[in-house]
Amino acid sequence: MHVTILLYENMTALDAIGPYEALSHVPGHEVVFVAKQAGPVTVDTGFLQLTATKALSEVERTDVLIIPGGGGSRALMQDEEVLSWVRRIHGGTRYTTSVCTGSLVLAAAGLLEGLEATSHWAYRHLLADYGATPIGERVVFQGKIVTAAGVSAGIDMALTLLARLANEEVAKAVQLAIEYDPQPPFDAGSPEKAGEALVALVRSLE
Amino acid sequence: MHVTILLYENMTALDAIGPYEALSHVPGHEVVFVAKQAGPVTVDTGFLQLTATKALSEVERTDVLIIPGGGGSRALMQDEEVLSWVRRIHGGTRYTTSVCTGSLVLAAAGLLEGLEATSHWAYRHLLADYGATPIGERVVFQGKIVTAAGVSAGIDMALTLLARLANEEVAKAVQLAIEYDPQPPFDAGSPEKAGEALVALVRSLE
Repeated sequence: MHVTILLYENMTALDAIGPYEALSHVPGHEVVFVAKQAGPVTVDTGFLQLTATKALSEVERTDVLIIPGGGGSRALMQDEEVLSWVRRIHGGTRYTTSVCTGSLVLAAAGLLEGLEATSHWAYRHLLADYGATPIGERVVFQGKIVTAAGVSAGIDMALTLLARLANEEVAKAVQLAIEYDPQPPFDAGSPEKAGEALVALVRSLE
Repeated sequence: MHVTILLYENMTALDAIGPYEALSHVPGHEVVFVAKQAGPVTVDTGFLQLTATKALSEVERTDVLIIPGGGGSRALMQDEEVLSWVRRIHGGTRYTTSVCTGSLVLAAAGLLEGLEATSHWAYRHLLADYGATPIGERVVFQGKIVTAAGVSAGIDMALTLLARLANEEVAKAVQLAIEYDPQPPFDAGSPEKAGEALVALVRSLE
């Protein structure tokens, strides 16, 4: 299984590293990090660099494409080099996936027209501008296109995907290996649970 | 708030990136990735490099120290340069923390003697060799030392810590911003939930 994760400036690191961790430890899986140019990419906080080992031009085909989100996705949505690469790679994938606002890149590439999709809760409504129907679910499968909600949802997406790529036993083994038995200290992970005051606070910082 | 995350060869990426994502978006927080030498560090799968911006010798003090885990922690446990740095930095922290087998590095540095601590479920028993009492909980606070269970537990640890470093409102806002409303597709994230067959399978691959 060949998994390709797109890296770009001002992306959100966990969007990529969550799915990477769930998909990379399976025997026979190969994960490649790709960016416009090979080399280090600085994430949205400015505190961290992730290294792309290949340039877009070096990746012609993959089984699973993962587009993470983050503030830099806005620039990607206008970047015809990236969008045409996404369209081309999508033609040969088993699954084309996104985490967080990565779904807006798929949308801008024209891949979500007429489909249901999700994204980070604060940006999900923008999917409608591209002919998609925004859905408030954590992971949305539409044929071979899979979109996940914000940031941490990529872990749930990847484990769900892994059960389809391999089988449930493999997905459960990975869940156990990464000890994914989440126990959030608060129940504030969605706008509905967090309430209006916290939603307004987070929107003011985005 | 100054947060320092130790990087090293053959570490597990999500152990570092989970807490990083939870702690790095708070206004006034600065996160520094540090390694024996500044520069790229290759993680345990070989598929990814994370970049350390500083060498150990360049970091004298931090408010929060985070030691991630992974196969490379075994070498760290024998590395007196790293262990003495950990001891020295611990002297000035508000919190000294670990994720996964990072707790074995704290143990090897002599910091867990007489304390309760946790680690990845498959390695937790080794803490006893260093005078610590292994505890099967996701996050264990002992004064200013905080240990988390395997890999994904670093997210829960960091949000719990953030509530103490700042307050609950800030921690909840970050939880909402990273949309941490986990919905694992299976209930297999701990040995007790996964059952003996999956535990044996994962042990055979470790």
